Amino acid sequence: MSSSFGKNLHLTIFGQSHSSAIGVTIDGLPAGEEIDLERLQRFLDRRAPGGRAYATARQEADRPEILCGMKDGVTCGAPLCALIRNTDTRSGDYAPFARIPRPGHADYTAWVKYGGYQDSAGGGHFSGRLTAPLCIAGGICLQLLEREGITLISRIASIGPVEDRGALASSTAEKEFPVVDDAQGAAMQAAIAAAKAEGDSLGGVIECAVMGLPPGLGEPMFGGMESLIAAAVFAIPAVKGVEFGAGFAAAALRGSEDNDPFAVEEGRVVTTTNHCGGILGGITNGMPLVFRAAVKPTPSIAREQQSICLETLAPAPLRVGGRHDPCIVPRAVPCMEAAAAIAIYDALLERRKEKR
Amino acid sequence: MSSSFGKNLHLTIFGQSHSSAIGVTIDGLPAGEEIDLERLQRFLDRRAPGGRAYATARQEADRPEILCGMKDGVTCGAPLCALIRNTDTRSGDYAPFARIPRPGHADYTAWVKYGGYQDSAGGGHFSGRLTAPLCIAGGICLQLLEREGITLISRIASIGPVEDRGALASSTAEKEFPVVDDAQGAAMQAAIAAAKAEGDSLGGVIECAVMGLPPGLGEPMFGGMESLIAAAVFAIPAVKGVEFGAGFAAAALRGSEDNDPFAVEEGRVVTTTNHCGGILGGITNGMPLVFRAAVKPTPSIAREQQSICLETLAPAPLRVGGRHDPCIVPRAVPCMEAAAAIAIYDALLERRKEKR
Amino acid sequence: MSSSFGKNLHLTIFGQSHSSAIGVTIDGLPAGEEIDLERLQRFLDRRAPGGRAYATARQEADRPEILCGMKDGVTCGAPLCALIRNTDTRSGDYAPFARIPRPGHADYTAWVKYGGYQDSAGGGHFSGRLTAPLCIAGGICLQLLEREGITLISRIASIGPVEDRGALASSTAEKEFPVVDDAQGAAMQAAIAAAKAEGDSLGGVIECAVMGLPPGLGEPMFGGMESLIAAAVFAIPAVKGVEFGAGFAAAALRGSEDNDPFAVEEGRVVTTTNHCGGILGGITNGMPLVFRAAVKPTPSIAREQQSICLETLAPAPLRVGGRHDPCIVPRAVPCMEAAAAIAIYDALLERRKEKR
Amino acid sequence: MSSSFGKNLHLTIFGQSHSSAIGVTIDGLPAGEEIDLERLQRFLDRRAPGGRAYATARQEADRPEILCGMKDGVTCGAPLCALIRNTDTRSGDYAPFARIPRPGHADYTAWVKYGGYQDSAGGGHFSGRLTAPLCIAGGICLQLLEREGITLISRIASIGPVEDRGALASSTAEKEFPVVDDAQGAAMQAAIAAAKAEGDSLGGVIECAVMGLPPGLGEPMFGGMESLIAAAVFAIPAVKGVEFGAGFAAAALRGSEDNDPFAVEEGRVVTTTNHCGGILGGITNGMPLVFRAAVKPTPSIAREQQSICLETLAPAPLRVGGRHDPCIVPRAVPCMEAAAAIAIYDALLERRKEKR
Repeated sequence: MSSSFGKNLHLTIFGQSHSSAIGVTIDGLPAGEEIDLERLQRFLDRRAPGGRAYATARQEADRPEILCGMKDGVTCGAPLCALIRNTDTRSGDYAPFARIPRPGHADYTAWVKYGGYQDSAGGGHFSGRLTAPLCIAGGICLQLLEREGITLISRIASIGPVEDRGALASSTAEKEFPVVDDAQGAAMQAAIAAAKAEGDSLGGVIECAVMGLPPGLGEPMFGGMESLIAAAVFAIPAVKGVEFGAGFAAAALRGSEDNDPFAVEEGRVVTTTNHCGGILGGITNGMPLVFRAAVKPTPSIAREQQSICLETLAPAPLRVGGRHDPCIVPRAVPCMEAAAAIAIYDALLERRKEKR
Repeated sequence: MSSSFGKNLHLTIFGQSHSSAIGVTIDGLPAGEEIDLERLQRFLDRRAPGGRAYATARQEADRPEILCGMKDGVTCGAPLCALIRNTDTRSGDYAPFARIPRPGHADYTAWVKYGGYQDSAGGGHFSGRLTAPLCIAGGICLQLLEREGITLISRIASIGPVEDRGALASSTAEKEFPVVDDAQGAAMQAAIAAAKAEGDSLGGVIECAVMGLPPGLGEPMFGGMESLIAAAVFAIPAVKGVEFGAGFAAAALRGSEDNDPFAVEEGRVVTTTNHCGGILGGITNGMPLVFRAAVKPTPSIAREQQSICLETLAPAPLRVGGRHDPCIVPRAVPCMEAAAAIAIYDALLERRKEKR
Repeated sequence: MSSSFGKNLHLTIFGQSHSSAIGVTIDGLPAGEEIDLERLQRFLDRRAPGGRAYATARQEADRPEILCGMKDGVTCGAPLCALIRNTDTRSGDYAPFARIPRPGHADYTAWVKYGGYQDSAGGGHFSGRLTAPLCIAGGICLQLLEREGITLISRIASIGPVEDRGALASSTAEKEFPVVDDAQGAAMQAAIAAAKAEGDSLGGVIECAVMGLPPGLGEPMFGGMESLIAAAVFAIPAVKGVEFGAGFAAAALRGSEDNDPFAVEEGRVVTTTNHCGGILGGITNGMPLVFRAAVKPTPSIAREQQSICLETLAPAPLRVGGRHDPCIVPRAVPCMEAAAAIAIYDALLERRKEKR
Repeated sequence: MSSSFGKNLHLTIFGQSHSSAIGVTIDGLPAGEEIDLERLQRFLDRRAPGGRAYATARQEADRPEILCGMKDGVTCGAPLCALIRNTDTRSGDYAPFARIPRPGHADYTAWVKYGGYQDSAGGGHFSGRLTAPLCIAGGICLQLLEREGITLISRIASIGPVEDRGALASSTAEKEFPVVDDAQGAAMQAAIAAAKAEGDSLGGVIECAVMGLPPGLGEPMFGGMESLIAAAVFAIPAVKGVEFGAGFAAAALRGSEDNDPFAVEEGRVVTTTNHCGGILGGITNGMPLVFRAAVKPTPSIAREQQSICLETLAPAPLRVGGRHDPCIVPRAVPCMEAAAAIAIYDALLERRKEKR
């Protein structure tokens, strides 16, 4: 058990890749909050494959049905449940993986964990498809956060060996292929196409910045913003690293370089650099909260790979058919925003308890 | 609130750097487990400053008193509470930081969060000193894990720009300065001494490997091992990044390189490489669980830094006196092990529920 | 927020009386458990109105659709989500209660809590209808408990002033109108009919016994079986009291009368009386766990009642139309079982963690 | 595990009757709240035996040491830990109960649960002594609640067969023996003395009322005030029943009698009766929240009782020596207040999250 997250905004994500439906229940949304469903749809569309060259050919409408929790377009205080029916499924494609686990996937670990009772079709509950309900919850949180002046922007920092150049800004985040340097973006897309042509796949790094956060969000120790956001972001399949501010690079700096000097700007306390990524002692300091997540290359590749048969323990070379993204990084961008938004909104609700 | 962690083994860490005592309550320890207090002390001693050149001169005996939860050296099923009295405190050293926040510390964010009521002496509840009770809890978990064949080993992967060379092994972890290549270790210590001489500080990277884990630990999505361990590790002050297996480097690999082929060895399913760090879909696959954490340089440096006065908002250059580690990385090594051990033991208890 | 329950088996109940659907997500069901859906339906049918004289005329098919969490009739380890579409709703019946709260209902408190944004139709999320998803979750738990030799039986102990006579047994629980003394049962039904004829309603007391529990379930203090079961049972609308074993009557006994002597029977430790209701120190002792819950009379009555208009604060006599049960006690019987089953199954999972 | 309680104010109670110390950690206290320790002591003194005829002769100073969480008498935002050293212990008195369980106590169930590793001296973690840290936490909450205009009053509603007469009022709660009718109070004390003289014990019922609660506290379903308060109150040893408002008596009323009509008084919505005990749909309606708890007679009695030897399973008559209260009801009064205060303060913090 732990498809559930959040202390103040509590959500449970349900569904398997090929079950009747996938969805999410969200308990703890304050009443009286308008949810713009058109806008939520546009957010979900950023995650949908949409026929782009670097995405799966599977058609996923991903139009959530809101079953409850709202009245006349406004939250009513009761838990919200949203679901998406699974329609375009081809379970047959996945039949062999029940006994011959795909390298890099959860087939083997799910088989061990659930004693062979797991629903392996399409990756079951471990499918990237389950990020759709994550994006429903996150997309709702993004709207609520924006109402308090908090916005999330993100970009593709790298794909394979190709890195973006320049600094993340709101204008970047609005691009269809969100990079600062479009030439580098073109190189990234070319790299994806090349990998695909070779039956291979690529990973990458995504960078997010949260603007407009008030200082004081986050709790000491285990409730720090780094812990909260990392716990949410690592729930996205394929994420293998998370860093905040200067992150791993900070480990090579000296204290005199890494420390962010305090200053006052327009009557507001700021820091003149932001190596801490807007977080000190786990608590927001009012500067942009910046994090990066490493996404491993899509494990489903067209090339032959070495596996074994779980029944006979004999070697079993396999070739993954089906329809797969040669690089999920572009589609993972809104997922990062969604995961971060959920964690941040939870921290925002926690913060409210401090004020009489 | 969130100095509490764990679903199945539930702990709350309490205390401020200069309060009467610091400590931890642990609820959920199974009854009948012997705790070797001598061995626990040796584990705590690895964290203690101990007069080494790279550590603070503050004398901290760090001898925990176990108030309850044990009988005749064995857990009795009731919550365990352990505390360490704070004795060698010099609160006067910290008086100015109540209004002039130290760059890189939680002084400012705590001030905002707690409306000026925080206990700022010695960093209060945000002090690195609070990792002592974390190590009590973690040291106990390490003993329980070892009883099930699970051991944690770790090393200093880098300090400042100096990187260790070679692969982590048990023999490395037993060294006083745990690096594979002792020449690199000597260079690291020289770098620390040089930084100290210049009134500056260094950070670094710590690598841990968990050996002997059964496959099947961890839960889907938010309960994955990455989420659990990252949430615990980010509770350690100064950690700014966490990665598993190939981590950020995986983002630059191709799927065909990153995927770990399955094979059978002595009747056991293994992978022939371990880029995934022993975790697939958030669940252990039986291979060593490997993670690295980036530790920023100690923010307390002897050089003058730019800050502001929170009362007047005027610029206020400050120089941090007191006694500080020029590099906390060596002392942070057992803290990483402790944080990981807590998260892993919690997952182990969770796993037991699956078996009738 | 708190339509969620359970630490080890975690469920969230969603829906409003007149929303598109109501349902429940259950996270934490062990994989490999067969769920007999026919039998689950028969359990749900015990709660359904079914055209009996003492129940509402509203037709509720209450056939749950299991969206996910199972494969081939067996749990697969992923969260289970079940929903029931709301079809036979007449929201118009409830329009006035948005501003003129019905005495004894949650109309007023929901209005305060949700600032007027609540979905008041049919009582919204506070409707007794939400016990249907509770019964889905509880009915599943009952099947899992039975597999471990644990069964729940219950009876109507009283309706209005009419009390059942004799001791609860399995044969009682199987009756359509579950009382030991059928003559008293007939008197209860006559009392319901009389109250209905007068536009009034009745309450009653339900008694449950859980047979076959192993000793050792439950945790100290806040995790005691009384706390767990009471927290679940009080979630059922209209429950105003819960007692265990001799309960309130124990308060009038002497220790020498109330204490249950220990004895050995067929090699098993038993008590020769069961005033403690199978619970000592919050932990099961292996004897039947017995509790009783007081259900207040249905607040919806046909008679004119005094209320006020929340907008004008003027007096506003009201008469509750719609279709209502003159006595919900018979339909509440399976709800008690469901609530108790959920709490007990959670305790059972907790207990498993104690065994290496 | 579950000596922990609370979602927003999270506490863990630790200690055994004869361990070095007992105490409580409280995580989530807002910063900036003054705690009057003198007043807290007076509250704890109400629970202490104090040499009265109806209480144990064991001398318990019960003077808590606040280890952390405060600065200059004011909460600082960090977890508070308070402990009471155990000094006047006579473990030898309890040696036999490790294998011959006392009827009515947790000796047997703890033995099963903890496999014989429990600390049975003095009842271990199941001792009534553990209500002292409960009262520390509750006494702090009472001060915080009072600051928001919320007060708790209580009385002894009955002891054995002797019932108090009249309605609970603030003046009642202030008496040393809190009953409305002092003649009945004298009869109660006489009944206790008589039971004691016969080596026996008595139970009773305690009634609490919470005044000044704002409407809107409590959450739907499992988060209702009844669920929260019952879960806390059942943590007090010997409590076997909890009811709200008319409680079990409501089950015998008709809807037309039980429903509380709404009215307006001084511009405020009120009900003209209070059968619901101030709670509708789990949520406070602004009227006094009234509950009663049944306390079973002290299980430790001087008479010979039937037990068995857990090692040999042979019958083993036993006589409980040691020093025991012939009736714990008077000392349990502040414990009820403490438990309720904790639950209510948690609900108050939850409520704050609803307001932007």
